[in-house]
Amino acid sequence: MRILILGGDGYLGWPNALHLSQRGHEVGVVDNFSRRAWDNELGAESLVPIHSLQERVAVWEAVSGKRIAVFIGDLNDYTFLEPVIRDFKPEAIVHYGEQRSAPYSMIDRRHAVFTQVNNIAGTLNVAYAIAEHVPDCHLVKLGTMGEYGTPNIDIEEGFITIEYKGRTDTVPYPKQPGSFYHLSKVHDSHNLMFCCKIWGLRATDLNQGVVYGVDTDEMKVDERLRTRFDYDGVFGTVLNRFLVQAVAGVPLTVYGKGGQTRGFLDIRDTLACVELAILNPPEQGQFRVFNQFTEQFSVMDLALNVQETARECGLDVTIDNIDNPRVEREQHYYNATNTNLLELGLQPHYLSDTLLESVIHQVQRHQDRIMEHLILPGVNWRKTGN
Amino acid sequence: MRILILGGDGYLGWPNALHLSQRGHEVGVVDNFSRRAWDNELGAESLVPIHSLQERVAVWEAVSGKRIAVFIGDLNDYTFLEPVIRDFKPEAIVHYGEQRSAPYSMIDRRHAVFTQVNNIAGTLNVAYAIAEHVPDCHLVKLGTMGEYGTPNIDIEEGFITIEYKGRTDTVPYPKQPGSFYHLSKVHDSHNLMFCCKIWGLRATDLNQGVVYGVDTDEMKVDERLRTRFDYDGVFGTVLNRFLVQAVAGVPLTVYGKGGQTRGFLDIRDTLACVELAILNPPEQGQFRVFNQFTEQFSVMDLALNVQETARECGLDVTIDNIDNPRVEREQHYYNATNTNLLELGLQPHYLSDTLLESVIHQVQRHQDRIMEHLILPGVNWRKTGN
Repeated sequence: MRILILGGDGYLGWPNALHLSQRGHEVGVVDNFSRRAWDNELGAESLVPIHSLQERVAVWEAVSGKRIAVFIGDLNDYTFLEPVIRDFKPEAIVHYGEQRSAPYSMIDRRHAVFTQVNNIAGTLNVAYAIAEHVPDCHLVKLGTMGEYGTPNIDIEEGFITIEYKGRTDTVPYPKQPGSFYHLSKVHDSHNLMFCCKIWGLRATDLNQGVVYGVDTDEMKVDERLRTRFDYDGVFGTVLNRFLVQAVAGVPLTVYGKGGQTRGFLDIRDTLACVELAILNPPEQGQFRVFNQFTEQFSVMDLALNVQETARECGLDVTIDNIDNPRVEREQHYYNATNTNLLELGLQPHYLSDTLLESVIHQVQRHQDRIMEHLILPGVNWRKTGN
Repeated sequence: MRILILGGDGYLGWPNALHLSQRGHEVGVVDNFSRRAWDNELGAESLVPIHSLQERVAVWEAVSGKRIAVFIGDLNDYTFLEPVIRDFKPEAIVHYGEQRSAPYSMIDRRHAVFTQVNNIAGTLNVAYAIAEHVPDCHLVKLGTMGEYGTPNIDIEEGFITIEYKGRTDTVPYPKQPGSFYHLSKVHDSHNLMFCCKIWGLRATDLNQGVVYGVDTDEMKVDERLRTRFDYDGVFGTVLNRFLVQAVAGVPLTVYGKGGQTRGFLDIRDTLACVELAILNPPEQGQFRVFNQFTEQFSVMDLALNVQETARECGLDVTIDNIDNPRVEREQHYYNATNTNLLELGLQPHYLSDTLLESVIHQVQRHQDRIMEHLILPGVNWRKTGN
């Protein structure tokens, strides 16, 4: 199948491109290197050294014999995007091409407005280009479990059937996202549901949990194929961050009480989920939502888990409950459904000591690159500023 | 009270400025004349001649002795907006300053992206300016009943209490808007709910129905104070459009079957609702939603109503069911709550023959200005294009 990966230079976009290429698909990647520019802005860097996209693609061709097409440009520039879609004629598009950090979106007004405009307008452009040039193409859009927030009822996959005052309807699941970034994904979801309705497009919204891990089969082949590994307070996700703190010998920083419960998944499962979605497309006109996570943990559960594994590796780790920079419930009900992908055949890699140990070893290999001052949260939800 | 009206040169913003000024408030208006520019783009014009904002304000001062401050600029330009908010120090802001036409947003990709970026970023800027400079200020934001769509259950005011699998929660009412414009309002609502939560702002989201009518007490004083009256296929709302068709002697154009049911209200009630919201502000941190309409009608009900009244005025009127340019249900359940404003004391002006007759007479006064070719819908929801 001809598959275009938007944001194909990023943490998940790049491993996904390799995985789909390895599985025999004809893959193209689109990127404007925003993610590398944000590192420059923040003075941060991937813990695992990463190579240029051009070099990555050349190495992949050398080791696998498979070509990945590269398109460098911005989804917000329709004069760039339109000919890419028109000429590559993708049968599926995997859309990672958004600003994906909650703290980045909360830095100040400019970052909030940038995040929403970038994500919403870029995705509208993608939808229009599909409708115009490849109306059968299946759009696999990365959303986030964070769109749902933490309601006091079970979280379903995108839609909920409500009985109310003697009548019944199935309606979009109410969203209560917790940052301007998460809000941008909610806006995307509403926009895409509408595009499917009016133009008969087909889309899968993958409401992804927090991804952890760094190894996939394809990337292990050559060091130069490695994907980025973020541990800073802005782009680092919680489990990766804890593992770096464990290796660095600084306390694991739990925001507030640590009762915040979320869905998580292994990086290998995110690749499998995306391929399952692609191989099992929705009907034309259907807007389908999958909750893409394999396990639920509280932040404190994770910290304790990392602490125990680290001790087994000979690392002495403490846990600090620090002031929560976010505005969120720290103790709450959480029970989210994730059966759609399991029913399509997903075989989850559950979080185990083995995985944690292997990531700890990866981090130790690059221990000299850890910049401790980047780990603590520097962005506060309660502050404004231009 | 010091009140700033964003979009104060528009169909409702201007009458609202006059009304609040007349009631003794200190009023400022902000506008960038987008609405007049869109007329230029579309080759359209208000049926009722309108005067420049500067002239309107001067006439109002001459007839009432009251001053209205004028700030000319774009909400998307924060270097303009920030000093206005900082220096005027509004205690309430009424926010009409958005692109408000569904068909305009559906013209093509550029108009869709413009509408969403303009509305979302402008409103984010307003929220940041409030948080930064006047955190006690009450934001009265114009939303639309169209945010809800046409679910098969009763429509509540912004929130719904759900019992689900043995648990209960009150959550945001699920939204199913029907255009990129309506979607932009849904996005605003989500963003503002979040701003109230994290910064403790207070806001009222007025989900307004379709407004009809052209007369308010303040505007009757001098012809030069009149507000615009739109009847074209892009900016004209359904009832105003039918009345112009009746006078022009062309068929009333009902889109599809005409079973589309919506909430409606008289222009005088929209002014009263806004003032009631201002005089009864929510608590700090509260995001409050009012459904602002007084009656529900189907489009066919309205057409028959106009037909009958027109006949009493000696006009022979026919009704045409034309192909629906929109993608929407044409027969559906519709039962929306609107008790919040009634409980605050709203005294509705219900649609009656008298109102329709008076608007027909207004339209007849300007009959020579009717451009018939502008009335039919020129924008099709199913089409794309750049």
